[in-house]
Amino acid sequence: MNLLLLQEEDLCGADRACIGGRRLQHLRQVLGSQTGDCLRVGLLNGPLGEGLIEQLDARQAVLSLRWSGQPPDELPVRLVLALPRPKVLGRVLQSVAALGVKQLVLVNSWRVDKSYWSSPLLQPAALRQQLLLGLEQGVDTRLPQILLRSRFKPFVEDELHDWCGAGTRLVAHPAAAAPCPAAQNGFLTLAIGPEGGFIPYEIEALQAQGFTAVHLGRRILRVETAVAFLLGRLSPG
Amino acid sequence: MNLLLLQEEDLCGADRACIGGRRLQHLRQVLGSQTGDCLRVGLLNGPLGEGLIEQLDARQAVLSLRWSGQPPDELPVRLVLALPRPKVLGRVLQSVAALGVKQLVLVNSWRVDKSYWSSPLLQPAALRQQLLLGLEQGVDTRLPQILLRSRFKPFVEDELHDWCGAGTRLVAHPAAAAPCPAAQNGFLTLAIGPEGGFIPYEIEALQAQGFTAVHLGRRILRVETAVAFLLGRLSPG
Repeated sequence: MNLLLLQEEDLCGADRACIGGRRLQHLRQVLGSQTGDCLRVGLLNGPLGEGLIEQLDARQAVLSLRWSGQPPDELPVRLVLALPRPKVLGRVLQSVAALGVKQLVLVNSWRVDKSYWSSPLLQPAALRQQLLLGLEQGVDTRLPQILLRSRFKPFVEDELHDWCGAGTRLVAHPAAAAPCPAAQNGFLTLAIGPEGGFIPYEIEALQAQGFTAVHLGRRILRVETAVAFLLGRLSPG
Repeated sequence: MNLLLLQEEDLCGADRACIGGRRLQHLRQVLGSQTGDCLRVGLLNGPLGEGLIEQLDARQAVLSLRWSGQPPDELPVRLVLALPRPKVLGRVLQSVAALGVKQLVLVNSWRVDKSYWSSPLLQPAALRQQLLLGLEQGVDTRLPQILLRSRFKPFVEDELHDWCGAGTRLVAHPAAAAPCPAAQNGFLTLAIGPEGGFIPYEIEALQAQGFTAVHLGRRILRVETAVAFLLGRLSPG
């Protein structure tokens, strides 16, 4: 937790926050915080600043707040991601949020196991929790927007074009002829399939929406590694 | 396991391999392989090819082998990494191996907890196992070389320069003035500190060896995310 991320309901009076639960435990047990310590704080979807711990006990921590800056710029990439296995979903979401992606669609694909869509990790509160952990890691306050689309075809044919907006559209595909470009300026949309890749029909459907298939070389990467590697490769020069 | 990685001791006769243990279990339980199936195989530090399953039972699998290609090119980056926490070390090593890094030093830093150096995961057999898993993931056969250096100063002052060889030398440092360059051609060495970063003394010691400090923006990334993001960013255009 590199940032104590506060929400409106944590505010108790002017420039003062009262927190309990997981964040309180983290302060006491991991950070070993004490009264008088100063922490980096942020307000969800708001500014960054500092929090001075005025009171800290087993029940709550009270901090006085001073706002002093804005969160970092977003990464100019919208991400379309085939729904990962539940086991790695949390890690991927945290990583995506820490890296500064603000628009994410989790989409079905032929190689996504149907059972993944009934994972309790896809409940809104569970998704939100992983994103908050990612923001705490990355020192950011702006919550990414997630769409869940359990049907590939209607999403891609009816919704994707408007969702992407302007900018380059790329889909990572092992069999693509072109290598993934590097150091892109301007907003872009990146689609990443399941570990075995999107199937040819899915690639064609994305190409029909203006996506260019690009490859990453001959290596096969885990989804969390592929996401970070590709976002790094595409990040503006 | 995207590659069945064989070692010399698995070979039983001309172009034939006999395997047991973890890999046999994986074939039977995860891949659901059967006699007659063809698998992508590789020989450790050797070629890639195909293996036809001639026999498969609870005791062993016997495959006939046909070698047909070379492993993918290495990623042209040598990595100096502050020793991560044991909990993430395995994942980082697998990721580094899957991405194609071939030269890695795990080094001490002021912010590395001393206890990490006594982790059983640093035993040669345990390190090798994680790297083999990474090669199986990334479909590569060339085992990365790892050095463990539990003393920062003598390593950096006496050994690092020769180890790096020619090429750009970069150290990721949150307080650096320059952003990390993108799409680099030619070999380079990249140093990545612990999550809180190298301390100023360590940065100076690296600068004295020709390293340029570069930053990644304002975000703080987990080591596994930072490694993949940076390797993506630096990968040749």
